[in-house]
Amino acid sequence: MPTYKAPLRDIKFLINELLDAPAELAKMPYYAENETADGALMEQVLDEAARFVEGELVPLNAVGDQQGCVRHDDGEVTTPDGFKAAYDKYRKAGWTALDADPNYGGQGMPHLVSNVLVELLNSANVAWSMYPGLSHGAYSALHAVGSDELKDLYLPKIVSGEWTGTMCLTEPHAGTDLGIIRTKAKDNGDGTYAVSGTKIFISAGEHDMADNIVHLVLARLEGSPEGTKGISLFLVPKYLPTPEGKVGERNGVVCGSLEHKMGINGNATALLNFDGATGFLVGEINKGMNHMFIMMNAARLGTGLQGLGLGEVAYQNALAYAKDRLQMRHNPRMSPSENADPIIVHPDVRRMLLTGKAYTEAGRAMAMWLALSIDTEHHHPDEAARQEAGDLVALLTPIAKAFMTDNGFNIAVQSQQIFGGHGYIREWGMEQFVRDARIGQIYEGTNGIQALDLLGRKVLMDGGKKLQKLAGMLQEFVDENESDEHIGEYVTALGKASQQLGSITMVVGQKAMSGEGGADEVNAAAVDYLRFFGHVVYGYLWARMAKVAQAKIDAGQDKDGFYLGKVQTARFYFTKLFPEIKALAATIKAGNEPLAVDNRMFGLERELVTA
Amino acid sequence: MPTYKAPLRDIKFLINELLDAPAELAKMPYYAENETADGALMEQVLDEAARFVEGELVPLNAVGDQQGCVRHDDGEVTTPDGFKAAYDKYRKAGWTALDADPNYGGQGMPHLVSNVLVELLNSANVAWSMYPGLSHGAYSALHAVGSDELKDLYLPKIVSGEWTGTMCLTEPHAGTDLGIIRTKAKDNGDGTYAVSGTKIFISAGEHDMADNIVHLVLARLEGSPEGTKGISLFLVPKYLPTPEGKVGERNGVVCGSLEHKMGINGNATALLNFDGATGFLVGEINKGMNHMFIMMNAARLGTGLQGLGLGEVAYQNALAYAKDRLQMRHNPRMSPSENADPIIVHPDVRRMLLTGKAYTEAGRAMAMWLALSIDTEHHHPDEAARQEAGDLVALLTPIAKAFMTDNGFNIAVQSQQIFGGHGYIREWGMEQFVRDARIGQIYEGTNGIQALDLLGRKVLMDGGKKLQKLAGMLQEFVDENESDEHIGEYVTALGKASQQLGSITMVVGQKAMSGEGGADEVNAAAVDYLRFFGHVVYGYLWARMAKVAQAKIDAGQDKDGFYLGKVQTARFYFTKLFPEIKALAATIKAGNEPLAVDNRMFGLERELVTA
Repeated sequence: MPTYKAPLRDIKFLINELLDAPAELAKMPYYAENETADGALMEQVLDEAARFVEGELVPLNAVGDQQGCVRHDDGEVTTPDGFKAAYDKYRKAGWTALDADPNYGGQGMPHLVSNVLVELLNSANVAWSMYPGLSHGAYSALHAVGSDELKDLYLPKIVSGEWTGTMCLTEPHAGTDLGIIRTKAKDNGDGTYAVSGTKIFISAGEHDMADNIVHLVLARLEGSPEGTKGISLFLVPKYLPTPEGKVGERNGVVCGSLEHKMGINGNATALLNFDGATGFLVGEINKGMNHMFIMMNAARLGTGLQGLGLGEVAYQNALAYAKDRLQMRHNPRMSPSENADPIIVHPDVRRMLLTGKAYTEAGRAMAMWLALSIDTEHHHPDEAARQEAGDLVALLTPIAKAFMTDNGFNIAVQSQQIFGGHGYIREWGMEQFVRDARIGQIYEGTNGIQALDLLGRKVLMDGGKKLQKLAGMLQEFVDENESDEHIGEYVTALGKASQQLGSITMVVGQKAMSGEGGADEVNAAAVDYLRFFGHVVYGYLWARMAKVAQAKIDAGQDKDGFYLGKVQTARFYFTKLFPEIKALAATIKAGNEPLAVDNRMFGLERELVTA
Repeated sequence: MPTYKAPLRDIKFLINELLDAPAELAKMPYYAENETADGALMEQVLDEAARFVEGELVPLNAVGDQQGCVRHDDGEVTTPDGFKAAYDKYRKAGWTALDADPNYGGQGMPHLVSNVLVELLNSANVAWSMYPGLSHGAYSALHAVGSDELKDLYLPKIVSGEWTGTMCLTEPHAGTDLGIIRTKAKDNGDGTYAVSGTKIFISAGEHDMADNIVHLVLARLEGSPEGTKGISLFLVPKYLPTPEGKVGERNGVVCGSLEHKMGINGNATALLNFDGATGFLVGEINKGMNHMFIMMNAARLGTGLQGLGLGEVAYQNALAYAKDRLQMRHNPRMSPSENADPIIVHPDVRRMLLTGKAYTEAGRAMAMWLALSIDTEHHHPDEAARQEAGDLVALLTPIAKAFMTDNGFNIAVQSQQIFGGHGYIREWGMEQFVRDARIGQIYEGTNGIQALDLLGRKVLMDGGKKLQKLAGMLQEFVDENESDEHIGEYVTALGKASQQLGSITMVVGQKAMSGEGGADEVNAAAVDYLRFFGHVVYGYLWARMAKVAQAKIDAGQDKDGFYLGKVQTARFYFTKLFPEIKALAATIKAGNEPLAVDNRMFGLERELVTA
């Protein structure tokens, strides 16, 4: 059975030493007023979070996978044994309210802290964590654009965790392409709407953990235009609340079935039938796509944190196994009294472990940098600082989602590999990490869609301005450190890569604007481009972490080898993982031409036609 | 539900146009005598094989996954519905005897043909196919080194498929490291041995599909030396045969449990308890490891073919979905009358599909080249030709196992990705391909072990002789074709890569011989080295296939675009996949140093000590 210990040492290193977060947060009046920017308080909260997930959620992870959720004939759904009890403890301890607005019962903690909580939850039990996770997305959208009336009625319940939330976007024929959804809303003339249609793949869509479920639903209002410009966002509760906020009449939304999936079996993935269900408009008519992206951006970072959390727990268990499993002798011996040595002594096993460590620690650094930037974007007193942070968040969100889930899946697979045949057996738990990690690359916009968002929208749409700002920050770091005796070599490599990213962007951008086929060039390059970009970001963070760590070593403050570990992992990253950009540069450069093959290769009778 | 059509067009292209196999086989008296080298006969057999797997095995694939195998209290095991009936049809149609020795009831067909059969079986139903697959390994070892008495009694039953076989190697504490197994054999003094111990992970280890199960078991004879030099191979039947070859008394080997696994659920993975079971020595005392490798090499190629077969079927289904699923508009439109275009029009989807096609078709070419080389190794009249073929087989076998299963898994994952959320849902069947493909990278020697076999044993142990022979063959091809107007560019890249492989080998070889830590350098480089080597082999095969195809195009013989497809896929391979070698060259060059980290990083108290 897998085990898990929250990586608090690394998290505290990032908060205090890499990001200097308490000082940054203290600049923001919101946290100062709420008295939540205090470093000691943050650490205390995180210690408590670690105790909760280790004690309550880890033991339920295999149970949830094996039992799954059960839908009954009346459409109600039972979650796995222990899920509801753990959720009750979780919300009563206040975790659902952690970073929520104090005006609605929240604790007003920094997003930086809740970001760590989400990582820990995902390491412990990703299927369970999706129940509160989805609520958080619904909270964000409602808080940002909901009417005061809706907010006053629903937010306190969501913040307290008594009610949970969902995002209802996908339909059987419409996943990536939400512009073609068929769910309809009809104005009832009394301030409510009648919502009808079928939504699929609704995570936490039906369950027995909370008193009510608040669905946020994309639908087309009668008379609205075709496409994405005619979509509005509606709140459709499972039970219509009484004016006092109690659970009232059952609404016309029913779970028609649950999906049987590869993983995340403990989470109910529901097909929901809306049959004239009473809904309430959230935000403006026909602005549903914009409002949805508020939820979606939160969900994307949350999904990235699934990759991070699963990578971490898979790595931890592979490490423990590699120290325990004796197989083949090594020269020099590690366990001379045994007839074989622990497999961690073999370089290839170390290569796999270090891959897990290097990607996970860089991913954590990126996620926390991003989370602190979200705090800055929302609460910094200086508008320019808010704008700059917002640009960074926009740029890094698709990378956080795609790069972290791709790496997380690969780490889970490689960690499973370290177990040999035992990794394929259910009781060891490693194969569940692989199955659970796989969904992160698919949902909340496939990783291919993230790559298009990065290259097409975030980078090219503003002529590369956001990218240039980031590149400037990197260049400053490179200029300062390229002569450093310890990290100079890597910093130089980073500088070259960052410049190469700029020139690649220019080349693809020019192709993109060269008329017909331009969009295809963006589409052809996007996935490799995102990976290249991800390495530049991770390279930057590893160089920064190594710099901080080396200073501690130089000051004689490395008693347990933690800082040496950082420096050596940075070396591993730059020598064994970062060189992937050499291949990516070549494949990006090759462009769309090798993909523009004769349609007969695919047995396509239809030829491309100009509409 | 996934579908599958055997890729007969491509297979016949390889047999007739790339390999000129009928002419090659006709040179071998064995096939001439058995009248099995005839091209028309081979095609007829393969058409029949395609009909069998498509009609009988594809429909059982999901059933096997969902039902799994059931062990009863008496240790007997029931396979999923339909498995036994399909097996009865299979053996009655003579498929178990296809390439077996006519002296024991076999049909004496070329290994080239049975290799294709195995690919098709694996595409259709990998869990089912492991029952006859394991028999084949047992057949090979028994046929090669068994006594006439054992062969006369057992081989006809295995060849006819009435009895199946297993390989019993792994024990709870001993997987890669067979030198430390604890299973014991005691000489009964009557020509038999009493075998006692516990074996785990025994594929097809217990089931209801055949009348008897013939276990080939590694054990240490009392008084034999420690380590791999004291291991012998024993035949331990489930039922002791009567002298007439009927099923007799129940032997002391019982299935203690079945594993619950990530995939291949239709195959029974058994824990077997041997309790003084009656065994018969196979081959020589203490030569068990050598004899085992006869089975193992067959099993390794067979495992590679699992990667190939699963990659093929995953690709086929992703292709069908990509043509069917409408999502987002493209300019120019492909389906102007719909509100979205089939996703195959988007370059990133094409990139994923072409990755599947390029790796699969090159893998098939390599596997068939290897299979024909096995025929040559065994049956060519010229000793030098046999030796040369044997060297090639030795060199390519670890690549076939590791490179094909790694690529097969990645193709399955990428094909699943094309389905978006639907790929994660069981009923679509794509996630089963991913789960089933994962085991190929782990068993029959993990892919890390294959890499060590390639670099350490196959390449460095003879001072690079086998590699040089292959490199010479490639250089000849490069010299002939580097000025070709169509393929010259790729041939030049191939030539450079082949030379780089040589120089990388030299560098690693020198480090390896430089005393202490040399073995670590081999271990550190091996996995990346195998991938680099795999690309050189696939590059060679793509260039050859493109050359053959271009000649047909030039001759005006490409009516359906098949040859153009080959040429364009070669271009895709060289521009989008082959550049991976740039990264691999860098990571190989980085060597062991970045892996030789401080042990405190891993929380290891034990330091390396010299024994």
